[in-house]
Amino acid sequence: MNQLATDLVSLPHVLILGGGFGGLTVARRLAGANARVTLVDQHNHHLFQPLLYQVATASLAAPSIAAPLRHILRRQGNLTVLLETVTGLEPAARQVRCGSTTLDYDYLVIATGATHAYFGHDEWARFAPALKTLDDARLMRRRILLAFEQAEREPDPARRQAWLNFIVVGGGSTGVELAGTLIELARHTLAGEFRRCDPRQAVVRLVEAGPRLLASYDTSLSDKARRQLEQLGVEVHTGVAVSAIDADGVKLGERRLPARTVLWAAGVAASPVGRMLGLPLDRAGRVRVRDDLSVPGHAEVFVIGDLAHLDQPDGAPVPGVAPAAKQMGKHVGDVLRARLRGSGESPPFRYRDDGSLATIGRMAAVAQFGKLKLSGLPAWIAWLLVHIWFLIGFRNRLSVMLDWAWAYWTHQRQARIVGGTDAENHD
Amino acid sequence: MNQLATDLVSLPHVLILGGGFGGLTVARRLAGANARVTLVDQHNHHLFQPLLYQVATASLAAPSIAAPLRHILRRQGNLTVLLETVTGLEPAARQVRCGSTTLDYDYLVIATGATHAYFGHDEWARFAPALKTLDDARLMRRRILLAFEQAEREPDPARRQAWLNFIVVGGGSTGVELAGTLIELARHTLAGEFRRCDPRQAVVRLVEAGPRLLASYDTSLSDKARRQLEQLGVEVHTGVAVSAIDADGVKLGERRLPARTVLWAAGVAASPVGRMLGLPLDRAGRVRVRDDLSVPGHAEVFVIGDLAHLDQPDGAPVPGVAPAAKQMGKHVGDVLRARLRGSGESPPFRYRDDGSLATIGRMAAVAQFGKLKLSGLPAWIAWLLVHIWFLIGFRNRLSVMLDWAWAYWTHQRQARIVGGTDAENHD
Repeated sequence: MNQLATDLVSLPHVLILGGGFGGLTVARRLAGANARVTLVDQHNHHLFQPLLYQVATASLAAPSIAAPLRHILRRQGNLTVLLETVTGLEPAARQVRCGSTTLDYDYLVIATGATHAYFGHDEWARFAPALKTLDDARLMRRRILLAFEQAEREPDPARRQAWLNFIVVGGGSTGVELAGTLIELARHTLAGEFRRCDPRQAVVRLVEAGPRLLASYDTSLSDKARRQLEQLGVEVHTGVAVSAIDADGVKLGERRLPARTVLWAAGVAASPVGRMLGLPLDRAGRVRVRDDLSVPGHAEVFVIGDLAHLDQPDGAPVPGVAPAAKQMGKHVGDVLRARLRGSGESPPFRYRDDGSLATIGRMAAVAQFGKLKLSGLPAWIAWLLVHIWFLIGFRNRLSVMLDWAWAYWTHQRQARIVGGTDAENHD
Repeated sequence: MNQLATDLVSLPHVLILGGGFGGLTVARRLAGANARVTLVDQHNHHLFQPLLYQVATASLAAPSIAAPLRHILRRQGNLTVLLETVTGLEPAARQVRCGSTTLDYDYLVIATGATHAYFGHDEWARFAPALKTLDDARLMRRRILLAFEQAEREPDPARRQAWLNFIVVGGGSTGVELAGTLIELARHTLAGEFRRCDPRQAVVRLVEAGPRLLASYDTSLSDKARRQLEQLGVEVHTGVAVSAIDADGVKLGERRLPARTVLWAAGVAASPVGRMLGLPLDRAGRVRVRDDLSVPGHAEVFVIGDLAHLDQPDGAPVPGVAPAAKQMGKHVGDVLRARLRGSGESPPFRYRDDGSLATIGRMAAVAQFGKLKLSGLPAWIAWLLVHIWFLIGFRNRLSVMLDWAWAYWTHQRQARIVGGTDAENHD
């Protein structure tokens, strides 16, 4: 081993689990710090999750919204990336287990995020795919595009319509964005390309158990979002929960809605890594952290992002959104730098709400920045700019801008390619 | 059903199996013809196969080299696309079986192409993936990128080097292009991004059983290609055949070469649909056609592209290359139009060799157009222009040009994203 490597081995070791918004921010914040840093992720890439629904609806190719972690962090000589899946934590021994590999640490940052949840009905997962990883997005895209292919081959009109019926469960921003893009895919992108079925006959329903869509936004924006969706042709159902899902559709209360394609955007659960700590969790499985984001009893272990539960002074928990994860990552990065310098300070973390944006369709969106509320075209432009800005990597920004410009002008979507043979695609 | 559909049903039905270069050309040639046309393919897209190796080496995203068949042919009102897999042919009854669906035809064009072959060693397929479809390319890409990840995690130096050893089997243009891009990926794109392994230590070997690479080119160009590859750092072995492949490497004659990643670019076999005709085949399983490309005994059945075997007047068979498939498609399209007009003419097909191009690496390629031979930078520029020109769809051309320009300037590759979790990726 060369001298550099030997020097590194004697430095404190910061181990970061998860290369999403939170983990990546901590990693970058430790550039040049007097420590050895290891970032562990089960995928080789950082994923820009806010745009995942665009891969799912064939508007963007997967590589446009992801970047290899190793490439993003290549300039940090004190940091390496390992492709591993965490299988156990031993906080007393300061060790993390990844299968047969054991990693020791001096400081641990757990940023493994959230995953899907089906409200205790895991059997629904087969019929209603959710959206958290690139593989999820590709599977969802395949199901959506193949539904139209099945409709084209189906001679019976009732069965054909069932293939053209889509149901999106969950009225948060993911569900709203999926529904809006789906209806546009059917009514514009695919219209005219089929001969036996008519994609414009597609019915897209968005169902939300709560009283309104986009519950975290102001009521007036929830209403605007609903109206914009209905204008596009989406049927919105609020105030009624899904009671069953199977291969033929969903049951909404007592009513049956036939649909061969159901997309799940309704429930989130914390990453299973949270449980491995053996500490108190909230109802969603998130780890209750102290206000400096460390965990009770282990000042050297931090939890950030969607896996962390922290109540702010006003009583509201820090939301599970990308900006919060980034702010927490910055906070922990700074705390670690202070510790490495010998300082014991642990300032409390304060979440700053910089605003929220959700897009509904072509030139339609809602945005809320504190008291400033936007909808329609200004919100849509803000949405575009913010998402382009925060994408990692100039090359990805260029690629996404090109895809969006093209789609805007032509209604075409550039990522409609479905892998797998016909045999695999006929369920 | 509307009047248009009823009219269509009474017209002659042309059934085309396969949406590659051959089948797609026939389909386009029949625009506006007095017939009902159905194009059947087991995938929803037309694939620009010459650039498949670029998806496999993470240089291009899959959607850049493929376009949905339905979208390409959307303006042809008399044509529809069906996503099906052919399971049987009944030429006497003029029927094609696709699982439980039966399709009747008046004219049949079989253009299902070629697939991989392992010279009777199908067991090698597990260890040495080949390159024919987008799924093949994604799998190959995953194996290549994960080999470097495995090298990063491997503490034993000999085992680490085995992960950095790559063997490409087959010295035709696909093998040459794979080897050249692989060495560039290792020595430039990934260099500096790993901490425990050094991608520049990767060894890429290209093995060819015959006496020289690119056997279909002039000898001087074969030599140039070999020299260019060796200059890039590829080890070229000719005149010795692979006798065994397993998880640890290959056996070349008596010699063992350790490599955890072996890529197959050596053998092609005809599509299994050829056998379903029940007619004489050549040794590679291709259908022997008459010189108007129809099959003996069935003047209404045509076979084109890689599945067809036709000896030209000079004795040489029409090669299995994209331009030949397109020329055959044009020929059959014209013959069908004549038949639909009532003419019985069946002119013979004559293949015109417009030239061949193979790229080796950055600014290195060989090209042969009749007596004109190019190598180095002029050949590379010709290669770029020709491939951009023949890509289907302006949008794809734009996207590929952008990716290539970026890669040229930065050595970076934009499609390094690997799906699947770590657990799935550790074989």
